[in-house]
Amino acid sequence: MTSIVESTTQPVTESGPAAPSPARALVCRGCGTEYPLAAQHACYECFGPLEVGYDQAALARVTRADIERGPDNLWRYAALLPAGQDPATRITVNPGLTPLVPAAALAAELGIAAPLWIKDDSANPTHSFKDRVVSVALTAAHGLGFARFACASTGNLANSVAAHAARAGVPSIVFIPADLERGKVVTTAVYGGELVAIEGSYDDVNRLCSELVETDEFADTAFVNVNVRPYYAEGSKTLGYEVAEQLGWRIPEQVVIPMASGELLTKIDKAFAELVEIGLVEAPAGGWTVFGAQSAGCNPIVTALRAGTDVIAPVRPTGIAKSLNIGDPAAGQYALEAVRRTGGWMDEATDDEIRAGIRLLARTTGVFAETAGGVTVAVLRKLVESGRLDPARETVVYNTGEGLKTLDAVATEVGPTHQVRPSLRALREVGLLG
Amino acid sequence: MTSIVESTTQPVTESGPAAPSPARALVCRGCGTEYPLAAQHACYECFGPLEVGYDQAALARVTRADIERGPDNLWRYAALLPAGQDPATRITVNPGLTPLVPAAALAAELGIAAPLWIKDDSANPTHSFKDRVVSVALTAAHGLGFARFACASTGNLANSVAAHAARAGVPSIVFIPADLERGKVVTTAVYGGELVAIEGSYDDVNRLCSELVETDEFADTAFVNVNVRPYYAEGSKTLGYEVAEQLGWRIPEQVVIPMASGELLTKIDKAFAELVEIGLVEAPAGGWTVFGAQSAGCNPIVTALRAGTDVIAPVRPTGIAKSLNIGDPAAGQYALEAVRRTGGWMDEATDDEIRAGIRLLARTTGVFAETAGGVTVAVLRKLVESGRLDPARETVVYNTGEGLKTLDAVATEVGPTHQVRPSLRALREVGLLG
Repeated sequence: MTSIVESTTQPVTESGPAAPSPARALVCRGCGTEYPLAAQHACYECFGPLEVGYDQAALARVTRADIERGPDNLWRYAALLPAGQDPATRITVNPGLTPLVPAAALAAELGIAAPLWIKDDSANPTHSFKDRVVSVALTAAHGLGFARFACASTGNLANSVAAHAARAGVPSIVFIPADLERGKVVTTAVYGGELVAIEGSYDDVNRLCSELVETDEFADTAFVNVNVRPYYAEGSKTLGYEVAEQLGWRIPEQVVIPMASGELLTKIDKAFAELVEIGLVEAPAGGWTVFGAQSAGCNPIVTALRAGTDVIAPVRPTGIAKSLNIGDPAAGQYALEAVRRTGGWMDEATDDEIRAGIRLLARTTGVFAETAGGVTVAVLRKLVESGRLDPARETVVYNTGEGLKTLDAVATEVGPTHQVRPSLRALREVGLLG
Repeated sequence: MTSIVESTTQPVTESGPAAPSPARALVCRGCGTEYPLAAQHACYECFGPLEVGYDQAALARVTRADIERGPDNLWRYAALLPAGQDPATRITVNPGLTPLVPAAALAAELGIAAPLWIKDDSANPTHSFKDRVVSVALTAAHGLGFARFACASTGNLANSVAAHAARAGVPSIVFIPADLERGKVVTTAVYGGELVAIEGSYDDVNRLCSELVETDEFADTAFVNVNVRPYYAEGSKTLGYEVAEQLGWRIPEQVVIPMASGELLTKIDKAFAELVEIGLVEAPAGGWTVFGAQSAGCNPIVTALRAGTDVIAPVRPTGIAKSLNIGDPAAGQYALEAVRRTGGWMDEATDDEIRAGIRLLARTTGVFAETAGGVTVAVLRKLVESGRLDPARETVVYNTGEGLKTLDAVATEVGPTHQVRPSLRALREVGLLG
């Protein structure tokens, strides 16, 4: 299958023999049972989700200099990931190393005194953080011998899987809810793979894919967030590694992260813990604190936190933050655990607050986020107002997607401030000239 | 004015005292008259356009290692640019170092035997190459004391100026034709500056801005592509530098470049010439060859090339490639000169060919381009078919913008391949399962 693998986009930045993968086994997050590194996502003993376990000694050999010598994308962290150590094996659009944007004007407006940063993952090739998880998942899937790539998606994942498949020249089949935003539908369909619109919610799509993965017809198919999910989830760790490196090898004191399945939040927390454990970074005095953000139309994890329970009651999602509309979040309980352990909190944003959040972020930072970013900024505001987030501690806010994909969210609210004929007189009449 | 300047997004990559600017004077491209480095764009003697002239000895001191030590964005080339040597003076969203994507499947489909690459500038922060020219123009404008940022735009420039102004906290006023694509209007308006829709063509907008720049009311306003145009244009050179560096300090044998004003093409050619002149790169055996691409709805430069004349007759633009719709191209004659001098050619693409070009590029590379990219890929195909472009020589094709901004171009052509209820039976009925 090596013919489907492209060379890196930065041909001059990597050389030398590839190290072996530091991944050791798949480990059940529930009961700890271990399994070989195969295409398996649930424990046969307790049905708990599986996670990649590493050879800690191998991780501990990684140095800052090794990473800094790496390519200008997430593969600089390959020695901390389960797959992709050899550039020739990567199925990737080379995402990562997205900007960490200082947000002083936003901080001032919200009453935050300490440094505030936006980690802007809309800068990835298909303009969401999903490129990270897809690159790791498909590289692992390629190594496991799969011949077709698939996913259940709320939109961004669809874009990324279809783009990765197109670049690699591998067939793809992507499943989406039929009511997705136009930008996300077109940006999947244009790559030419199969695109199946399902008349139902994301949770319906996800259940369907969980059935498909067991069929003979799909035995050759890697569903990035189903049968190779343990590898997929690890890609999110790079959003923790990068922020630490970009801050000069420091972990921020507070992070605010949007939640759909809840997996992104748990993996950023895991990345920080790994960096400390292997000695690349010291934990901040007082540790780091993790905050989660959902929309009011899909808030099952926030609801469980408020109720003080570990039991997450599924909801039927509504509202404009479609990329976060997972009513039955697979990693919700682990997100609760991380937030509670670190002394953080969660909150939710209404559709109007989401729109205001998008506009506030754009106006103060020049970053145009999709609805998920609006959720996160709106929740940041609430966390400051409620005193849950400490305005005297450094904070990083994660923007996971691009405003161009969810134009409708703000298109009725913003537009030209003036429309005139092409003449100085016309400009004078509307007060723009004298 | 230092309060409006942000720190770099990669705080750990730069240090040490800044070198002085290598810019020496503004030089008339027509008669060679020189002027001080001020906000001036036309020669008082012959009305020719001004260009930045450099201290060649200063440029010649720049080494590959200097550049490679720089930040992961266009400011790594600051020593070859007229402004921004000191990071603290930059007005920027830190664009650049965008992917150079290998395009083997596209090459195979077009009958190109040598390596083919897509320089994908949709990866910039506001998703077009305009972030490059705006960062250089506004950094120069800031140094010249301007207090407001403006432009005449076909869309991408509007997005970029508004985003730069928002990040810097400086007022902006952006002028666009009223019939622009919705994606480009919203992506400007969301940043909160003044946005003036003009009921006319881009050329009308441009003429209006040329009048405004002479008024007292706009004396404090830098129009990036009018009164600070010489600095603005230099930003495009980085698209030449980067390709050479990403190829391992080699100039590609052939480049295919979209043309609006024609300036981008001339500056990429200039960048290659500079790299050779200062000894950073050797010219390829046989030199490099420059090809230009326009849409059939706005083809004044192509028409002049075919007619064998230097006189470019303005046209009234039509067609879907709005970002290239400049009917009276300011640098057209210089683009003609570069193409003729290097043995290249130009061609044009109809709207149907543009749509096919967008889909071909997406399907074979995973890059979703806006209409301008569709123009360039369609023209690449024509240049191969006509024998103008040598399929045995290495070629780089420039994609300057993002497909999400011009969704309508392909939205009626692509969509879900299937729509079904969420059940295995429904999938079976449409032939997706056995």
